[in-house]
Amino acid sequence: MQTLIANDVDTVIGNPGTSEMQFVSALDSVPKIRGVLGLFEGVVTGAADGYGRMAEKPAATLLHLGPGLGNGWANLHNARRARTPIVNIIGDHATFHRKFDAPLNSNIEALTETVSAWSKVAAIESISQDVAATIAASLTGPGKIASLILPADVAWGEASGTVAKASIPKPAAASQAAIDHVAKLLRSGESVGLLVNGPALREPALRLVNAIAQKTGARFWCDTFPARLPRGAGRPHIDRLPYFGEMVTMTLGGLKHLVLVGTKAPVAFFAFPGKASALLPEGCEAHTLVEDAQDVLGALKALAEAVGATVADAISEVLSPPTDDPSGSIDPSALGVAVARAMPENAIIVDEANTAGFAVPLMTQSCAPHDWLCLTGGSIGQGLPAAVGAALACPDRRVFCLEGDGSAMYTIQALWTMAREQLNVTTVILANRSYAILNLEMMRMGLGDAGPVARQMLDLNNPAMDFVAMGKSMGVPSYRAENAEQLVEQLRRSVATPGPTLIEAML
Amino acid sequence: MQTLIANDVDTVIGNPGTSEMQFVSALDSVPKIRGVLGLFEGVVTGAADGYGRMAEKPAATLLHLGPGLGNGWANLHNARRARTPIVNIIGDHATFHRKFDAPLNSNIEALTETVSAWSKVAAIESISQDVAATIAASLTGPGKIASLILPADVAWGEASGTVAKASIPKPAAASQAAIDHVAKLLRSGESVGLLVNGPALREPALRLVNAIAQKTGARFWCDTFPARLPRGAGRPHIDRLPYFGEMVTMTLGGLKHLVLVGTKAPVAFFAFPGKASALLPEGCEAHTLVEDAQDVLGALKALAEAVGATVADAISEVLSPPTDDPSGSIDPSALGVAVARAMPENAIIVDEANTAGFAVPLMTQSCAPHDWLCLTGGSIGQGLPAAVGAALACPDRRVFCLEGDGSAMYTIQALWTMAREQLNVTTVILANRSYAILNLEMMRMGLGDAGPVARQMLDLNNPAMDFVAMGKSMGVPSYRAENAEQLVEQLRRSVATPGPTLIEAML
Repeated sequence: MQTLIANDVDTVIGNPGTSEMQFVSALDSVPKIRGVLGLFEGVVTGAADGYGRMAEKPAATLLHLGPGLGNGWANLHNARRARTPIVNIIGDHATFHRKFDAPLNSNIEALTETVSAWSKVAAIESISQDVAATIAASLTGPGKIASLILPADVAWGEASGTVAKASIPKPAAASQAAIDHVAKLLRSGESVGLLVNGPALREPALRLVNAIAQKTGARFWCDTFPARLPRGAGRPHIDRLPYFGEMVTMTLGGLKHLVLVGTKAPVAFFAFPGKASALLPEGCEAHTLVEDAQDVLGALKALAEAVGATVADAISEVLSPPTDDPSGSIDPSALGVAVARAMPENAIIVDEANTAGFAVPLMTQSCAPHDWLCLTGGSIGQGLPAAVGAALACPDRRVFCLEGDGSAMYTIQALWTMAREQLNVTTVILANRSYAILNLEMMRMGLGDAGPVARQMLDLNNPAMDFVAMGKSMGVPSYRAENAEQLVEQLRRSVATPGPTLIEAML
Repeated sequence: MQTLIANDVDTVIGNPGTSEMQFVSALDSVPKIRGVLGLFEGVVTGAADGYGRMAEKPAATLLHLGPGLGNGWANLHNARRARTPIVNIIGDHATFHRKFDAPLNSNIEALTETVSAWSKVAAIESISQDVAATIAASLTGPGKIASLILPADVAWGEASGTVAKASIPKPAAASQAAIDHVAKLLRSGESVGLLVNGPALREPALRLVNAIAQKTGARFWCDTFPARLPRGAGRPHIDRLPYFGEMVTMTLGGLKHLVLVGTKAPVAFFAFPGKASALLPEGCEAHTLVEDAQDVLGALKALAEAVGATVADAISEVLSPPTDDPSGSIDPSALGVAVARAMPENAIIVDEANTAGFAVPLMTQSCAPHDWLCLTGGSIGQGLPAAVGAALACPDRRVFCLEGDGSAMYTIQALWTMAREQLNVTTVILANRSYAILNLEMMRMGLGDAGPVARQMLDLNNPAMDFVAMGKSMGVPSYRAENAEQLVEQLRRSVATPGPTLIEAML
């Protein structure tokens, strides 16, 4: 615990059990650590993801053996794809107890490895070093899931020695040859695009990308689902690649070169019969500016210099939000306008709206500055937990969580933590009462309309869920918006009211 | 799908995604298969566990790639400990798509192996044989998690050939030497106990254990958390070993021999500083009657014959339920009496009541015959899903699901499936508003009372959850019982009303 604090890890989000009681008990002796309870481990890991994306430092999780890790696995998967630093602490049986294969025993090491970039079993002789090494691993290169398995007898043992400091290596510089090569392409007069993600989407890096593109006439995009995208007035305008593969290829059509900055060449989200997995258009060549663990910001600075681009000369988004409140039924466009009209400066948008939310990015792009957080790994049930974590990291900012009804139900328990911690989260449940994306995908698969039995597996009516009752049951003030007027009014009221609000928007 | 039906697997419980659309679409062409939707994969796998325990044949799951399996992992862990047969079907990306490492890609094989006894990646050339082999594996020896990974291009490919039949090997006979050895112990006059679990708890086997014990004066118990225990009038009386390790050792005190039938020597659920992990008392020797994959019923028949015990001569439990309705506040004993008074014949009790429910087994032991299902693997969040599965398997029986409030919140989405499928489940939420077991365990760890921060991690007040609103929000008629009179009346009404009911019992 002292090692966590000495290395600026001050937030522990957990769902502990018997084998973690020493850790929990110690929370009272290290008052600088904030302990946050999730009712389900998917809330814990998703919150650690949202926290890490916004705080740019790791939260620690606390999970109860293999099943706790299993429950947290899906949102660790999303965090892995987001490159979020997480110090993932997994309690285990005492070392001497494992051989008895008690009911909760499982192969935690193997399970941990399936979702961690780095993992270690803690030992009492080296506990402080082990914790420091976990923190360092989580922050080395792009963010990582670094997992420390903590046997109960290590937790209850007597540690000795000094508190270790995490040693975080600086990223290596990108190759000068790669920078020169890309600079030459950009000056060649051929059609060049830049695809950026990860560290290239931090604001200073993105401003360089913007300046480079404007100077050279290159186009640029980020990946479909970035972990965190700075948007709004005064910031560069950047489009995300579309979701459907064929549309990605169309978007990139005509490019001779695609320069990859903090990402890889675009691939289809899913395979479909007769459709391509690799989405680069024919005749377009991919080029890597920086390798994964290299210094993205440094490479972009060097590239800007090479092409003579300066941030000060580049044009950014101009403040021009929608000017009228929406009215009538809540269609995708009305939803987007309502969010744009109600969104305060510096809002954080957690976007798990899926099909229902497709117009919101467009309607909000010229609003006051804000950050946009996406579902990076495709495992739904990430939005509500990530909103918890973002609000923990940024208590002075309003979080809007745009959540599909189907997605919401994977980790609905997050609402309780919002209420307990009085987090400034406005959750908008987009109630279309189906897995709408799957109806679309079924058609794209060439399967036609779903038959009656298949339809049962995709629709969420029968019974319809009442998210207002659900939110209230967990202590979150909750309202139903039957039309756009109500929606915008409820959104505004939520912004003016500290703590969480839930709005069920009837689509 | 045809292979599932040909081998009597007629229930598919799933939460599908894009890569499973062919499977979902095919549900309409095989009308004998019942497709059941869970809103979260922990509901899916827990329901498959409850189904398998009661149907004594596997249900098939349908999970969406690594994250779907991750979400279902914890209840697969419980099912693994329960030895429940499950045909676990995990959709994956098309084989040609995996190398692109799309966002949902993960190491599914490695993840699958952490919780499966058997696993295979399906191929189009052998799809029917692969499905049949999965079914056979799930039913070989004690029940198993058998996992079939189904790449999308296998699902959309054209299968050929005939529909394969699963070939399930008969268990080998137990060794005659082991049977003779145990028979000799039982006749030796020394103090002998029998510890039984698994197949030895099926009713015919348990009757033989009872007869053997009564004939020889041996005592007998089952493990603390059996998968399925037949109880009530006309059946043998059998006690479960206690939960706390020191009490197990006390219970077994004075035994010279403990004969293991379908189980292993008792071990502590958790390790504690200075407490034993192995719980056999000093001077007590363990003996194994049958190995894991051997024929338990055959061994017990041979043993009964060897000691001259006959089932017809053995005494069973006599019908003698509590005679008066409980009144006043809902304490553990009133809860037990209320359940005993309301429970119809042939009820199924799914018990995840933890601390709050400790008196219910005692109060119900002389009621009409019923089956008792326990949390086998210690991973909470199993009760509500298992109740779904038990009710799917046994539509003519009433399921009582006794559920701690903390445990309920791991897989609360199960209520929606109860409502959608109109399952005959009476869920009783035992609202003590804390992880009460952890307060106990903290004291047993020698950590004293929890400090204020630690207490925050164990208590579930602030905000208190409203399970009546929660149940109604998912379509389940829900009531609050403030006292024992209301509880017993609401329980009775639920039994008389088809479909699900939720009762929040205020402790």
